[in-house]
Amino acid sequence: MSDERLIERQCASELVLAGDFLQVRRDQIAFADGAIAQREYVVHPGAVVIIPVLDDGRLVLERQYRYPLGQVLLEFPAGKIDAGESRWTAAIRELAEETGYRAREWACAGVLHNAAAYSTELIEIWFARGLSAGPQSLDDGELIDLCLMQESELDALAAAGSLTDAKTLIGLLWLQKWRRGEWALTWQPAPAEAADPSTP
Amino acid sequence: MSDERLIERQCASELVLAGDFLQVRRDQIAFADGAIAQREYVVHPGAVVIIPVLDDGRLVLERQYRYPLGQVLLEFPAGKIDAGESRWTAAIRELAEETGYRAREWACAGVLHNAAAYSTELIEIWFARGLSAGPQSLDDGELIDLCLMQESELDALAAAGSLTDAKTLIGLLWLQKWRRGEWALTWQPAPAEAADPSTP
Repeated sequence: MSDERLIERQCASELVLAGDFLQVRRDQIAFADGAIAQREYVVHPGAVVIIPVLDDGRLVLERQYRYPLGQVLLEFPAGKIDAGESRWTAAIRELAEETGYRAREWACAGVLHNAAAYSTELIEIWFARGLSAGPQSLDDGELIDLCLMQESELDALAAAGSLTDAKTLIGLLWLQKWRRGEWALTWQPAPAEAADPSTP
Repeated sequence: MSDERLIERQCASELVLAGDFLQVRRDQIAFADGAIAQREYVVHPGAVVIIPVLDDGRLVLERQYRYPLGQVLLEFPAGKIDAGESRWTAAIRELAEETGYRAREWACAGVLHNAAAYSTELIEIWFARGLSAGPQSLDDGELIDLCLMQESELDALAAAGSLTDAKTLIGLLWLQKWRRGEWALTWQPAPAEAADPSTP
């Protein structure tokens, strides 16, 4: 099946919100048949989520207040990619900043699109193992409680509807598939410069 | 562990974008320690995703161009909740409009939060079975190709990194858990008024 008839072509593009945190664009687009429509969407730099697996098999998770939802969510560590930063570097940095953990080995499981209708965001999914603990170094205005959990605890929360964060549910899916040998991960040693986070 | 120290309290709220499609608010917030910060987020009416299971076990999926990503995604049917509409009614309506299918039985699997950092969106996850085919009735500016797929095909795409839509990956997780008897669904007959979609 060809995608030609589905594709929307940009005719014009305007920045309609230059917020401190969110950038929103409004584009005029044309369908393959020439009809015109409008699309509004958040321009996002992309993000990473990390599934940190301790040597004893437990997972490192975070509890964080999500203001737009008015509730605390249980999530795998995650964060936005900084300008000029590779996704892997962002994963190493976010894991260290939010949890204090450094990993000896990393594996990329792919990407997910979490809000395809109205955001350019993609989240790259990383596994981390060979973890050693250290101090958190949170950004201003970032409050995070860490929790160490078994896969079975996380699974029970998801089955009961108490685990609702999309990237975390997908991390659980990947973890269980990998542990059962159904979906493959390719592990790589952490880059040398990441071994000592005090190195500039 | 108490959540008190994590909670952010609203001090002021301003609508900073009233778009045709996106509404964005900027709030001043206070942390438990009195520090002040700002949050920008999309105000979203909520959505539903439907996992439609045919009597022969195949699944009904859609291919749709996602303009913010510049690519066609493979997704379970989904859509926004209309004003005053229940989530179940939205699921019945979206399945009928986007795919033409009507379901004899429905089961709600819970909710997911897909962009907790910058959107109020929640997506309620519905299963539909006992499906009978009918005509699509798409909105203006909605172009959707339907695909009927086996669970194994969807699983192979996910393993290869070619299935990236978050709600669809979570639908696959739920489907496999339910089929293995690990996560439970409670099925309900479709409401009477939904049996004949020509009834007002």
